Amino acid sequence: MERKHGGDCAAFEREYGFAPLDFSANVSPLGVPEGVHEAVCRAAAGIDRYPDPDCRALRASLAEKERVAPSWVLCGNGASELIWRAALAAKPKRALVAAPCFAEYEAALGACGCEIVRFPLAEPFALPEEFLRQINHNTNIAILCNPNNPTGRTVEPALLRRIAERCRETGTRLLLDECFVDFIDEPEAHTMKDCLEECPHLLIFRAFTKLCGMAGARLGYALCADTAFLDAMRRAGPPWSVSSLAQAAGLAALREKNYVNQLRALIQAERPRLASALAALGLRVIPGEANFLLFRSETPLGNPLSERGILLRGCADFAELDETWYRAAVRTREENDRLIEALREVLA
Amino acid sequence: MERKHGGDCAAFEREYGFAPLDFSANVSPLGVPEGVHEAVCRAAAGIDRYPDPDCRALRASLAEKERVAPSWVLCGNGASELIWRAALAAKPKRALVAAPCFAEYEAALGACGCEIVRFPLAEPFALPEEFLRQINHNTNIAILCNPNNPTGRTVEPALLRRIAERCRETGTRLLLDECFVDFIDEPEAHTMKDCLEECPHLLIFRAFTKLCGMAGARLGYALCADTAFLDAMRRAGPPWSVSSLAQAAGLAALREKNYVNQLRALIQAERPRLASALAALGLRVIPGEANFLLFRSETPLGNPLSERGILLRGCADFAELDETWYRAAVRTREENDRLIEALREVLA
Repeated sequence: MERKHGGDCAAFEREYGFAPLDFSANVSPLGVPEGVHEAVCRAAAGIDRYPDPDCRALRASLAEKERVAPSWVLCGNGASELIWRAALAAKPKRALVAAPCFAEYEAALGACGCEIVRFPLAEPFALPEEFLRQINHNTNIAILCNPNNPTGRTVEPALLRRIAERCRETGTRLLLDECFVDFIDEPEAHTMKDCLEECPHLLIFRAFTKLCGMAGARLGYALCADTAFLDAMRRAGPPWSVSSLAQAAGLAALREKNYVNQLRALIQAERPRLASALAALGLRVIPGEANFLLFRSETPLGNPLSERGILLRGCADFAELDETWYRAAVRTREENDRLIEALREVLA
Repeated sequence: MERKHGGDCAAFEREYGFAPLDFSANVSPLGVPEGVHEAVCRAAAGIDRYPDPDCRALRASLAEKERVAPSWVLCGNGASELIWRAALAAKPKRALVAAPCFAEYEAALGACGCEIVRFPLAEPFALPEEFLRQINHNTNIAILCNPNNPTGRTVEPALLRRIAERCRETGTRLLLDECFVDFIDEPEAHTMKDCLEECPHLLIFRAFTKLCGMAGARLGYALCADTAFLDAMRRAGPPWSVSSLAQAAGLAALREKNYVNQLRALIQAERPRLASALAALGLRVIPGEANFLLFRSETPLGNPLSERGILLRGCADFAELDETWYRAAVRTREENDRLIEALREVLA
C-alpha cells in the first residue's frame, strides 16, 4: 500500500493555489529558531565540501546532552532514515508492531522481507499488558512508539520496563521511537534513555524535526549501547546521508533551549484546550500526550476543511483506523481557534 | 570490508589541527556558486515544514534540462542514496560490476543479499568487449560508471550501445552512473540519456555534487523510462530523503550556467596539464577523462603529503587496486601546482 504522511503542503498548494494552515504535520508552530536559521546560512558557504560522514561534532554535542558515550549515538537523515537502516542491519525475520503506528516501520521491514505481526490496539489505544505475551523467541524485533503516532498515547512506564526485560529474555531487539517524547508532560518519567546500558538490545530513536522547527533539514538520531549494531546500521546505507546543513542546524538547535522550553510550554497549554474544544464539538478525542491529537468524526472533514484552507491528517491508511479518524497537530492558540471555528462550521 | 571515501576533511583536521588542501574528494575547486548559497539561506527560513517528498518543482526543472518527462526523474539524497534504493527495489540475485568501481555499488548490493560477479579491469582500465559476453540471463543487474571512478576512463560509445542492447536481450537492468560525465570533453557523445525511451531497462544516475559545488547539500537524481521501477525505488526508502535545503540548492544550481561552464573549462584545461606534470615526475598516470586522475607510485605518498597539508585518495580499498594507487582531484591551476611541488619534494 502507498504510504501517506502529513505535511504535504506542496500538493495542497498545487490544488488550491495557496499554502494551507497545516495541522496535518506534527511540526513546530513557532517557525525556525533564529539560531538554526543563521547556522544553516553560515554552513551554506561550505557545502562545496562533503559532510563529515561520522557527524563527529554533532554526535559529541548529542552525547553530552543525552549523557551517553558518543559511540552510542548514530545520526541519520531524519529518524525515518534510521528506521530503514535498522531494518537492513537487523534483517529480522519476524517483527511485532503495535498498530496503529507510524507507517515507515512496516514499510521498511516489509522491504527487507520481514514478516510483520501486528498487535492491534483497541480504542482508546493504550498498550495493554497482553503485548508482553506476544513477545517470544521468534520475535526478532519489537517496535513501540512512545508516545505513539498517531494516537499520542504513552506506554505505562512499569509495563515498558517489563517489555524491555522480556525482550532481553527472548533475544528480541526493542526499537523504541521517542521522537515525540519531549512533548509529554514528564519526559523523564517515560524515556528509556537511562536503561540503555543495562539493555543493549534497546534502540531509541529521536528526532530534531518536531522540537526544533527543522523538519525540512532532515535530522534524527539513534541511541544504543550495542555499538556493533549501530556500526552495522552505519554501514547499511550511504555514508553521507546527513548533510552538512543538517549537521550545522542540529548543533545550533541544541543551543536553542529557550525555543524548546517555549514550544513545550505552548503544547502543554494548548493540547488540553484543543482536546476539550474538539470534545465539546461532539468529536471523540483520544487522550493523547504529544503535540497532536487523534479524533473521530462521522462527518467527513477532509474536503470541507481544505476548502477553508486547513489541512488535517486523514488516518484511513493507518492499520486499525479508518476514514472516520483524523489527526491534528497542536499549534498556536490563535491557529487552534481557527481550526475549532472551521470545525464548528462544518459540523453545524 | 569498511568502505572508505575521499573528502573526510574532518578526520584530517582532527589529526593535524588544520584543514587540508583536499585532493581526495572529486568536488568543485570553485566553491559554492553564489546563487546556490543564497537559495539555501532563503530556504532555511522555511525548514520548519517538511520537504516536498516528491520534489515536484525540482523534478520539473530537471525534466526540462534533461528533456525527459518529469515522471522519468527521481531525486535522492545524493546519487549514493539512489544506489541503495535501486538495490532494495530491484532485489537482484546476481550483479555484474566492473572493478575497480565506486564502492557503494558493492556495499548496497551486498547488503541486499546480492551475489556480485566482479569483472576485473586490467591496467589501463579501459572496458574491453569481453564485458559483453559476461552478461547473461542470470545477470539481473549490470553496473557501469561512465566515466568510471576511480579510473576516469569512459566506455567506448559503440560498445556501450551494444551492452545496452545485450542487457535488453538478457532482461538485465543496466545501471549507468554518469555522475562525472559532464567533465569529459564531449559529454553528449557519451551520455546514454537519449536512449532512455528505447531502453526502459536503463537507469542513469546523475549528481549535483561535483558540477555545482554542493557535495555537502546532498542531491542526486536518477533517470529512467521505466516509471514503475522508479516508483519502486521511491518506495524503497524514507519519503523525505531530499531536504528542502537540497531541493532549493538544486533549483538554484540549474540556473548557474556560467559557474558550470567555468568549472568545465577549468577541468578541461587543467586535467591534461596535471596529468603531464604527474607523468613527468615518473608516476604512472591513467588517461582519465573526469575531474580526477588515477596514478601509481611505488613511493608511499599518503603520509608525506598529509604532513605537507595535502590530502590524496589512497586506493588500496578498491578491488583490483592496491596501496600503490592514488586518486587526485583536478583543482585550480595554483592548487595543482602545489600538489606537483609537494610530490616533487616527496619523490626527490
